[in-house]
Amino acid sequence: MARNTQVSADLNAPPVTQLLARFIATHPGYLAGGWSADVDHEAHRTFMNWLGCAVGAARHDAATAALAAVAMLQPAAQASVLGRSEKVDMASAALVNGISSHTFDFDDTHLKTIIHPAGPVASALLALAEHNKVSGRELIDALVLGIDVSCRVGNAMYPDHYDRGWHITGSTGTLGAAAACARLLKLDTEKTAMALGIAASQPVGMREQFGTMTKPYHPGAAARAGLMSALLASQGFTASPKALEAARGMMQTVSTKNDWNEITEELGQRFEISFNSYKPFACGIVIHPSIDACAQLRAQGVKPEDVQSIELRVHSLVLELTGKKEPQDGLQAKFSVYHGCAAGLTFGRAGEEEFSDAIVSRPDMIDLRRKVVASVDNSIEEASADVAAVLHDGRRVHVFVEHAIGSLQKPMTDAMLEAKFHGLTDQVLGLDKSNALIQACWNVGDASNLRGLTALACADC
Amino acid sequence: MARNTQVSADLNAPPVTQLLARFIATHPGYLAGGWSADVDHEAHRTFMNWLGCAVGAARHDAATAALAAVAMLQPAAQASVLGRSEKVDMASAALVNGISSHTFDFDDTHLKTIIHPAGPVASALLALAEHNKVSGRELIDALVLGIDVSCRVGNAMYPDHYDRGWHITGSTGTLGAAAACARLLKLDTEKTAMALGIAASQPVGMREQFGTMTKPYHPGAAARAGLMSALLASQGFTASPKALEAARGMMQTVSTKNDWNEITEELGQRFEISFNSYKPFACGIVIHPSIDACAQLRAQGVKPEDVQSIELRVHSLVLELTGKKEPQDGLQAKFSVYHGCAAGLTFGRAGEEEFSDAIVSRPDMIDLRRKVVASVDNSIEEASADVAAVLHDGRRVHVFVEHAIGSLQKPMTDAMLEAKFHGLTDQVLGLDKSNALIQACWNVGDASNLRGLTALACADC
Repeated sequence: MARNTQVSADLNAPPVTQLLARFIATHPGYLAGGWSADVDHEAHRTFMNWLGCAVGAARHDAATAALAAVAMLQPAAQASVLGRSEKVDMASAALVNGISSHTFDFDDTHLKTIIHPAGPVASALLALAEHNKVSGRELIDALVLGIDVSCRVGNAMYPDHYDRGWHITGSTGTLGAAAACARLLKLDTEKTAMALGIAASQPVGMREQFGTMTKPYHPGAAARAGLMSALLASQGFTASPKALEAARGMMQTVSTKNDWNEITEELGQRFEISFNSYKPFACGIVIHPSIDACAQLRAQGVKPEDVQSIELRVHSLVLELTGKKEPQDGLQAKFSVYHGCAAGLTFGRAGEEEFSDAIVSRPDMIDLRRKVVASVDNSIEEASADVAAVLHDGRRVHVFVEHAIGSLQKPMTDAMLEAKFHGLTDQVLGLDKSNALIQACWNVGDASNLRGLTALACADC
Repeated sequence: MARNTQVSADLNAPPVTQLLARFIATHPGYLAGGWSADVDHEAHRTFMNWLGCAVGAARHDAATAALAAVAMLQPAAQASVLGRSEKVDMASAALVNGISSHTFDFDDTHLKTIIHPAGPVASALLALAEHNKVSGRELIDALVLGIDVSCRVGNAMYPDHYDRGWHITGSTGTLGAAAACARLLKLDTEKTAMALGIAASQPVGMREQFGTMTKPYHPGAAARAGLMSALLASQGFTASPKALEAARGMMQTVSTKNDWNEITEELGQRFEISFNSYKPFACGIVIHPSIDACAQLRAQGVKPEDVQSIELRVHSLVLELTGKKEPQDGLQAKFSVYHGCAAGLTFGRAGEEEFSDAIVSRPDMIDLRRKVVASVDNSIEEASADVAAVLHDGRRVHVFVEHAIGSLQKPMTDAMLEAKFHGLTDQVLGLDKSNALIQACWNVGDASNLRGLTALACADC
């Protein structure tokens, strides 16, 4: 009991639990001038991208297994499981939708911290909002604020926290989900601080789980824990009011780097959701510039059958992480820049379908992958790619991509997000419902409740 | 992505996830010779002590608030909330019973790691066993094995893990609960490894929460997460088979000290539940020798009204941690060795009732506390106390306690555990049901199912 060997405790941390709680409880919503129209539009884009990912993976084994485990609790039918027909209690809906939304690893990315912020926050919010008949406006407001909390805490701890093994999406996501749900429940500052405090004891996720179902489990479990933290706080459950910043509070326990300014600076003026990005391609981000370049070759009229070879020059990291030349299935293809090039040139896109086992094993794809000659050029940035197609007729068509589509410098347009959404949801819901759901997402800020939207996300209904 | 700053990764850790999974899935139960009668009796003592604590605190604000939050999910009536009449789904029962069992901080202690092992493990087990109509024998077997997992992982990481801020009861408890529930569900080695793996992503609890409801929330949340991890694994959910030991697995992420031998040595031969201890007094363990000494004075005929002064000599740590001379309420009295002495001399015991506001503010107790003269003597061990009562007639009665009752050296007898149980449960259940429940606990290993036992733990039924 006398031993105290904590080396690096910062006893002068600012009261960030309290500051964030006051921000969440009192910051004006969008209609009262809380943030710009651009920020609010980004929140709609974030919501739509998250929803498409969740619907798209709803029949995946991970969602099916999670739902079977939840069914053993005989849950009440409070909230929708997206892309399916089941309803479960709102905490379980938060869990399962959070899992689905991250299963394809196709959800949003806050690039500064590589947090996938929507999974924990939106999954908790939609379940709570649907059951409590809250308006879409309140949901979007809470989404902006909740994502601000998880990303700011992430900014403060990154990279140390991530380097030591935490899957930062789940570990900060519990806080974001708790904050968002506290806002939706209209908790006052004190109770919001309690919600954050209860959530602070429940960081979720280790990086060792990457490649297993437990990876997408992390945002799901974070959503569930955050939602429950807010419900507990609403009922008078208590926690430390310094749970985030204290010497033995969450942040100092899970990270040696804690830049408190990242939490306090421009709080309520700069919104981290503004820096959210969306993947156009269903694979690791280092492959994106190469896919983008090959898709541009296709747009310029280059056809696979005309190609003798594709000369690819990239940063060494790209081949280190994704140098698999002969992928045997869809999962391996996600780590193959060669397949990315073949898909980009053949289809002009590389969604979940282009990483299916069926397409990966097609003879023309195997053939095209073998024509890609990759070389390292470290004068090219990680975010860039230099690609030249050498054609049978001797012509050489060259494309240099400085920033791939989907980066902050070259964001996906709204139309591209819609196309991505269709690629995920059409097979699950059909074209008409997908179209209607896209409209419901763009208009969610004006919806009086979420029942109409979740009904559209129901498969076989 | 290229940055890799993890300094101290041990890439040669033994495959402890797999070893523990095989142990849990294949070690013979008690009836097949898996462990000694002494170990099995200790499991019954652990179970009874845990149950008494949970029933005793069932009406506390923490349990009431947690149950109100759970009620918002409209749970199915699958499993009992101990000491109350409500039934909730088994995961929620694990949560609420886990909270109640630690609310008084009066539950069991594995002294080497200061883990309170029963809270997470027994709370998950009883809920699952009650709903699944499993036998008491299977429950006790799973309790022995589950506690072995959490305490061995605790042994490996302690003290670094605790020093950096983790409440080790919750952080290792998720694993113990998952292991125990996997055993109860008869999962094979592979699925048990998955259950441990899913649990490994969910360590719960920061020490900053001590003094708030979130402290007892930790074993409750660990129980819930462990139970759900086992249910998920039973449905085919996957995790890393190296989730505990890998460089970015749980243990290396949350602790720089990892002595793998603590997990592997004498696995299946030495059982950590043998080293479990039970508090006779409802306060911090450093006060226990002083209370024990004063209770011995009382047993020798010393009456409070005869006392002129009490001379107390203790290690400096005792006064540093519990030197509050004039406590104003029950919570403060738990940090007052002076009140401990007054209670020991007046009542011969110091249970939850003797730390109530009513008793703490009684004039005779205030008077007696003021008669205690404490002095530091560092030749006396932390675990000891030297007490002398100086009486009005000039006599001096002296007691030296080397090891207090409740220590490993001087364990509470079964009769003492029964008396402690009555002190916790009589007010909730009445004397007759408490007596019946005590018998049900001693006989739980022979029970065909747990319905009878949980019915006895129902208040107002």
